Amino acid sequence: MRKFSQDFQTELYDLMKWRRDVRHFKPDPVDPELLRLCLNAFQMAPSVGLSEPWRIVAVNSADARQKSLDNFKAANADALAGYGKGQAELYATLKLTGMRDAPVQLAIFCEEDTPKGSGLGAQTMPEMRRYSVVSAIMSFWLATRAYGLGLGWVSILDPVQLRHDLDLPDNWSLVAYLCVGWPKEETETPELETVGWEMRDAQLTTLIER
Amino acid sequence: MRKFSQDFQTELYDLMKWRRDVRHFKPDPVDPELLRLCLNAFQMAPSVGLSEPWRIVAVNSADARQKSLDNFKAANADALAGYGKGQAELYATLKLTGMRDAPVQLAIFCEEDTPKGSGLGAQTMPEMRRYSVVSAIMSFWLATRAYGLGLGWVSILDPVQLRHDLDLPDNWSLVAYLCVGWPKEETETPELETVGWEMRDAQLTTLIER
Repeated sequence: MRKFSQDFQTELYDLMKWRRDVRHFKPDPVDPELLRLCLNAFQMAPSVGLSEPWRIVAVNSADARQKSLDNFKAANADALAGYGKGQAELYATLKLTGMRDAPVQLAIFCEEDTPKGSGLGAQTMPEMRRYSVVSAIMSFWLATRAYGLGLGWVSILDPVQLRHDLDLPDNWSLVAYLCVGWPKEETETPELETVGWEMRDAQLTTLIER
Repeated sequence: MRKFSQDFQTELYDLMKWRRDVRHFKPDPVDPELLRLCLNAFQMAPSVGLSEPWRIVAVNSADARQKSLDNFKAANADALAGYGKGQAELYATLKLTGMRDAPVQLAIFCEEDTPKGSGLGAQTMPEMRRYSVVSAIMSFWLATRAYGLGLGWVSILDPVQLRHDLDLPDNWSLVAYLCVGWPKEETETPELETVGWEMRDAQLTTLIER
């Protein structure tokens, strides 16, 4: 039985505090061995029925990166157009993606109908497969931060267009587009809070009891 | 800038290895202070646009627990009926929920249309709010394990029925039903692997390159 020390518990909470959505990267490359080590966290994540439905696409070529960036630009322009004047001005100043400078870019998909796990736990909630992929991404995110890397999760994308542009099967759903690299600066405070877009709650909302 | 030691990195991976889906609990109660400490992990999780859309319902009353268990039983009977003979025999032997004995039971919802975050990052992928909730659940899961607790995620439920039974708003989606308590035994190997339902992959599938 594996016990964890008080020091470790404290450091784990520090890790969660210092894990941020990073959008400003240094140009320095990431050692492929280090990336692989962090990617091992995927396999330690929970998955419904042991279905392990995560599919990881390294977006490396100039062509694939350009198409992904164009996808972001279109979705971001649409989002901007949906805000009223004051919010639109602030939105336009936000840096919402590291896709122009992150050395590592990964598109993470869920194979919706994988036979692995024989559907256990996913009959009434088929979205559990996507949630398994999110659990794996969160594990990877904490691992990257423990090794000093930064990760940014881009969701301002047309997911169907991206799957099409990357020439991937129809039964794969985009869950996340991840930018990974060495962060330019590190902070405990989310950038959206710093610029005044939104604040985190001071404390967890009271539990509702039933 | 917060750096993490090699010892911490190793222990973090141990934590991920030892985090399991626990379905066998001791009857011992969980100190409410410890539960609150673990729940703090929710607030350290990433959320799209800082929307913090997680809503946590403590399922405490005998009535609410009975309705939730009945929901599980019905969904589990339906799932069993969908398997062929050999798999059905094995499925029937599996213990898939700790709902009969876990001292703490939490239903975790996502408020789909929270105004918090003003929709940032969720225009083309509104499912990002549910993914934020999953990230928070994963943070909580790792926190509980660091403190020696066990957690089991039950997904064999009709999510709409559960929301109805717990008398919660229509714009809340069930993401997870969590059983929390002191585990009866601890192991590195998932129970589904031990009983031969499914195996984890020996290594992470090769990255696909684009």
